[in-house]
Amino acid sequence: MREDVSPPKGFRDFQPEDEILRKEIFSRIEKIFQRYGFDPIETPMVEKWETLAGKYGEEAEKRLIWRFKLPYSEKEFGLRYDLTVPLARFVARFNPRFPFKVYQIGRVFRYEDPQKGRYREFWQCDVDIVGESSPLADAEILNIVIDVFEEFGFKNYTIKVNDRRILREIFEKFLGISDYSTILKIYRIIDKLDKIGKEKVLLLLKELNLGEKVLEQIESFIDASKLSNEEIFRYLESFDSSEIKVAIESLKTILDFSKKKDRIKIDLSLVRGLDYYTGMIYEAVVEEPKIGSLSGGGRYDNLIGIFTGNKIPAVGGSIGVERLIDAGLELGIFKKEKKTYSKVGIVYTKDVDVKKVWKIADYLRSKGINTFVPFEGYSGILDGVKDLDKRGIQFALIIGKKEIEEGKLTLQNLLTRERQVVKLEEIDKIVKG
Amino acid sequence: MREDVSPPKGFRDFQPEDEILRKEIFSRIEKIFQRYGFDPIETPMVEKWETLAGKYGEEAEKRLIWRFKLPYSEKEFGLRYDLTVPLARFVARFNPRFPFKVYQIGRVFRYEDPQKGRYREFWQCDVDIVGESSPLADAEILNIVIDVFEEFGFKNYTIKVNDRRILREIFEKFLGISDYSTILKIYRIIDKLDKIGKEKVLLLLKELNLGEKVLEQIESFIDASKLSNEEIFRYLESFDSSEIKVAIESLKTILDFSKKKDRIKIDLSLVRGLDYYTGMIYEAVVEEPKIGSLSGGGRYDNLIGIFTGNKIPAVGGSIGVERLIDAGLELGIFKKEKKTYSKVGIVYTKDVDVKKVWKIADYLRSKGINTFVPFEGYSGILDGVKDLDKRGIQFALIIGKKEIEEGKLTLQNLLTRERQVVKLEEIDKIVKG
Repeated sequence: MREDVSPPKGFRDFQPEDEILRKEIFSRIEKIFQRYGFDPIETPMVEKWETLAGKYGEEAEKRLIWRFKLPYSEKEFGLRYDLTVPLARFVARFNPRFPFKVYQIGRVFRYEDPQKGRYREFWQCDVDIVGESSPLADAEILNIVIDVFEEFGFKNYTIKVNDRRILREIFEKFLGISDYSTILKIYRIIDKLDKIGKEKVLLLLKELNLGEKVLEQIESFIDASKLSNEEIFRYLESFDSSEIKVAIESLKTILDFSKKKDRIKIDLSLVRGLDYYTGMIYEAVVEEPKIGSLSGGGRYDNLIGIFTGNKIPAVGGSIGVERLIDAGLELGIFKKEKKTYSKVGIVYTKDVDVKKVWKIADYLRSKGINTFVPFEGYSGILDGVKDLDKRGIQFALIIGKKEIEEGKLTLQNLLTRERQVVKLEEIDKIVKG
Repeated sequence: MREDVSPPKGFRDFQPEDEILRKEIFSRIEKIFQRYGFDPIETPMVEKWETLAGKYGEEAEKRLIWRFKLPYSEKEFGLRYDLTVPLARFVARFNPRFPFKVYQIGRVFRYEDPQKGRYREFWQCDVDIVGESSPLADAEILNIVIDVFEEFGFKNYTIKVNDRRILREIFEKFLGISDYSTILKIYRIIDKLDKIGKEKVLLLLKELNLGEKVLEQIESFIDASKLSNEEIFRYLESFDSSEIKVAIESLKTILDFSKKKDRIKIDLSLVRGLDYYTGMIYEAVVEEPKIGSLSGGGRYDNLIGIFTGNKIPAVGGSIGVERLIDAGLELGIFKKEKKTYSKVGIVYTKDVDVKKVWKIADYLRSKGINTFVPFEGYSGILDGVKDLDKRGIQFALIIGKKEIEEGKLTLQNLLTRERQVVKLEEIDKIVKG
């Protein structure tokens, strides 16, 4: 009898070669966050249901949040759906010094239908600035995202930027949709643009019965994605609205302070799916592979206020690590080439005193060399070398009974096949050099 | 209106000063695992209920596992209860090369009553050797645990060791308890010894109606903790049992290969609460503070077989990071002294061109210096210095309008209060030196 060995649908196990690559990527992203003066916090994987309720929008609440009760309690819980709402709760709880520059790296859970680049458990690297309303904070978030793409050598990325204030003002003031929940519905439909295309989006919007003018406006937002940033600014300046003018100024400042202006593309059809955004919003995409956005975020000036009772502005971005990795693997930027952290493996035969082998291993470890020792001697040297090769260990330290008596060790580089007789004290330099 | 800002009972938020300390401790533990030739894997936070069911024992299953269904599905899930059962599933799924030396660092979930050192979400650092039955593997796990305690400078730790084969043989063969589930019940009661004391343990055992002889035997196990390892071996050798003799040999090998023999104390009253152990078991404790075991584990030769259908031996240990940290903080071994990763903060006044400040910050970041920049100029230099001081940033780089024109910068070490006029290119050396 054999039990089912697969994880739940949409969940993944990571083998050492996956995990070693992932850890390296996380660490490089984290270093960028730290370079910009951001510090880490951690929040629970489980939140009270009330903490998550009413924050993400209808679809999330009805279909996507991992919401549950235990058999032992009447309390309702949810697995965290993103890192932003827990951050908002955190800020309200601890009242940190503003601007609070903070990062989080961790798992989030969504009950989605699994497909390429979409999982039920995935990792986000979030970077947020809390307590700052200046568009410079927005610019800093985008510069960090740019640094991440540059760090990994992505060549073909674009950061699409928009501002919810522009959209809302046009829908409310110029198209007369006074009900904000209707506007949020419109956002959620437009948000599917990349997935289902323009025609289907317009069909879905039609079902809301908003009138021709609204549909035309949205269509012109979509078509405007072909225009240059300057042309879009000119188009927006034609609206007589101080709110829109403020948003234009904000976008211009963001562009002005950007490390790579030419990567930033204003896109009026960008809406983002989550309810809580209030100002600048962005999504970063690569041309190839077609995998959806690798990073997204924006300003959420009202979310923290739900917890604190008073308004605290904030802006943040999230890097979707799985898509970044999947895209990088496809583009050949990332490779799963490292199967182990072990640098040296010891090959010894059955006639060798294991205690002496352990002594040698201990010495190497004390020098900071990751050393793999099997618990039994190999039946032959060749067997041992083959085993270490399959394990992806670069250096084989070969110890026979005679060698140990003579104090002579053989070190073989399994990449170059070179062998040399070495003293124990020399190994450090060879394997690190 | 203000929403509840606390996490669920037994869950915790970690502020930057907590998180920075935790990350350092995780990283040092991880380095030790790697030095011994172990590689990382990762498994999901959520498992199918069937994966967890029947592995941990009655109490876990009836009261402690985070078990649930979602509103959208009839499937039952559980949050992972430890890292060992997911590892067993992982091994059955991927069939890695043996001996498979593997580590995992992550959260696990237990619906316990929260108290000092006991949470509903906590972190474990697990290290396991799969596919190896030699007691040398047991010894290696204990040496790693010893290295962890030595790494952090704990002075007063003891590693209690026992062997389930000894216990089972005595209960089955010499006391005639043929029903293994009764033996597991006995284990679970004895496991509470540290928490409730000998008298209460004996009272609870009495309720099982096992007869006087069994109670006397258990009492003598408990009292034997005062004996030396050699005296315990002599006592055990008096039993006529090949199974016990094998276990004694195994314990002697473990002692023989231990890095610190004097830290290892055979304790016949050590049982461990979980069902899946089959051979050597251990718990590491410190004399002060009284906080329970900081690490525990043992051999589980039958667990993986539940998933694979054929027996695969394995042994592992788990370091309970929260207790390690709590103990270390109480002992003064750990200190929450670092509030930020930022090394330099820039103090500038409102009349300074922010773009020039960002240029300077970018330069410092390109040199790998973590640099914090506020988004608005301070109203005065002193305000800025005070702000950085409160943030725990060591160096203030002071930039006034005049200074920027003259290319002169002032760097102040906020620990020593020393100020010096520096060139931009010199900062790197000063702050890293």
